[in-house]
Amino acid sequence: MANSQQQREPTRAGVLAAARKVAEILPATPLIPFDIGNAKVWVKAECLQPIGAFKIRGAWHRLSAMDESERESGVVAVSSGNHAQGVAWAARRLGMAATIVMPSDAPPIKLGRTRELGAEVVTYDRMTENREEIAQALAAEKRATYVHAFGDPWVIEGQGSAGIEVLAQLAEQGAPPPTRILACCGGGGLSAGLALACPDAEIVPVEPEGWDDVCRSIETGEIQSIGDNPPLTACDALQTFRTSPINFAVLKERCPYGLRVSEQEVREAQRFAFAELRLVLEPGGAVALAAALSGKARLDGTTVIMLTGGNVDPQQFCRSLWPA
Amino acid sequence: MANSQQQREPTRAGVLAAARKVAEILPATPLIPFDIGNAKVWVKAECLQPIGAFKIRGAWHRLSAMDESERESGVVAVSSGNHAQGVAWAARRLGMAATIVMPSDAPPIKLGRTRELGAEVVTYDRMTENREEIAQALAAEKRATYVHAFGDPWVIEGQGSAGIEVLAQLAEQGAPPPTRILACCGGGGLSAGLALACPDAEIVPVEPEGWDDVCRSIETGEIQSIGDNPPLTACDALQTFRTSPINFAVLKERCPYGLRVSEQEVREAQRFAFAELRLVLEPGGAVALAAALSGKARLDGTTVIMLTGGNVDPQQFCRSLWPA
Repeated sequence: MANSQQQREPTRAGVLAAARKVAEILPATPLIPFDIGNAKVWVKAECLQPIGAFKIRGAWHRLSAMDESERESGVVAVSSGNHAQGVAWAARRLGMAATIVMPSDAPPIKLGRTRELGAEVVTYDRMTENREEIAQALAAEKRATYVHAFGDPWVIEGQGSAGIEVLAQLAEQGAPPPTRILACCGGGGLSAGLALACPDAEIVPVEPEGWDDVCRSIETGEIQSIGDNPPLTACDALQTFRTSPINFAVLKERCPYGLRVSEQEVREAQRFAFAELRLVLEPGGAVALAAALSGKARLDGTTVIMLTGGNVDPQQFCRSLWPA
Repeated sequence: MANSQQQREPTRAGVLAAARKVAEILPATPLIPFDIGNAKVWVKAECLQPIGAFKIRGAWHRLSAMDESERESGVVAVSSGNHAQGVAWAARRLGMAATIVMPSDAPPIKLGRTRELGAEVVTYDRMTENREEIAQALAAEKRATYVHAFGDPWVIEGQGSAGIEVLAQLAEQGAPPPTRILACCGGGGLSAGLALACPDAEIVPVEPEGWDDVCRSIETGEIQSIGDNPPLTACDALQTFRTSPINFAVLKERCPYGLRVSEQEVREAQRFAFAELRLVLEPGGAVALAAALSGKARLDGTTVIMLTGGNVDPQQFCRSLWPA
């Protein structure tokens, strides 16, 4: 196996290869139809993955592509918790060491689960410390491979495997291929992967208000960053300051626009998922559904909504959604 | 089409026919693997059905088998809420009138949803009134077909379609066929259907403590009833006083034993489903999982656990599972 450190673009062939690899170890997550008003939509329930999030896909494609010497040196990653668990899960399965740099204010359930999966967790202060620098220094010290949460061709291709499942599942259910896919968006790994997987679909990244760097990047045609003092958001999984060039190269060609949703719209979507779909969604996993339910997203044709994660502290979930 | 009122036994051929009919309109619910200690088990997430419960299967098989004249006269059913929604859903799809007799203390969310599906709801007092008599009188008055919640061959066969999906899904995932299936049990419609669907599996009905008429019927070899003053239970869906002869004819041949779980074990299972599976379960939909998690069920071989329903009031759910 070739060393996996080469610089390259993510490709649809890579997404197809990722889909085959993922299918060997993970059953397809369900694609569930339901109605919003007169529109029939489909949700892809990635919250039902073993780690509760789609990130297991990219992590598995990335780590399983490493050669023997890379595997021996282990991996380092940065994540608020879902990529963390994906990398830890894949590393454990491959017998590799994993060190994950996580914000000290990450949800305790995500910190705990990443440790339970056998990873070493190093925490940092989200507002004052540079997580990339910490991770790069750790990777250099350990001679480990740094696995970026979204700006990595393998990771993008791995996330795209969800789109290959969607195509097969719509066909099985006798439905037309997707007109558009609404994707929860942090750094744009999933959005870029879906764009490669589904070349005929419109890809719509959805971000929390104030964390809309991908929306603004699409609107301006150049990568934009989140400024100082961004607003508080419950969407810990989507607090990304800027996308990467390899993601944006795909997104700028394939995303005519992005959408922004409010914290209240996110909570509404979480409540809807609980009561109507019987699914637990974390805030960051509910933004695409929020865009659909709020009326902000077009729903004509075949609309697929990615439900990307469900790792949430139950007490916090109850307190924020149904305060006594 | 022949009139569907004939007396007959449920059969495996009927289950296979039901599975084909169900597959035409409902995607298979996911079969999700995970580990309990060293045991690998599979959960069948029937809480992800459009009505949030497996009851849609039996209702669809029953109502879609009716001839024109039966359809014109509509249906009457008795249910605390899941069979109610199944019958209402199927009736709406077939353009039929549905009248559902429901206990006045049924969860408001179940009463509301049954009405939203277009059914007429008639309430009764669970402890003082005889629901069967009310329903039979209504059916006679309306010349409507009475659709029993479990003691009906079509309903049993329809519920069994879940077992046909399980067989196909285990095979797809390269797993051996089921050694046993743990089934949440009220009147025994699902358990009997699964027994017909999976002739080589041990079928284990699981009931709430004190509502163990099927367990006792299996143990004594004769149908037993719940006595006066049964204990309170959160499992509204499983408060059945006695099984029917056509169910017991199957169960007595195929169930070597049943299992009982406590209210606390049910809550633990609901918490586990939320945090580890990201699934919302109502108490009655969690008893089979409770049997597995509590150590009461054998888990060697291939164990499938039915998660049968997720229709629960969110505030009640939060209050009972994570009291402030």
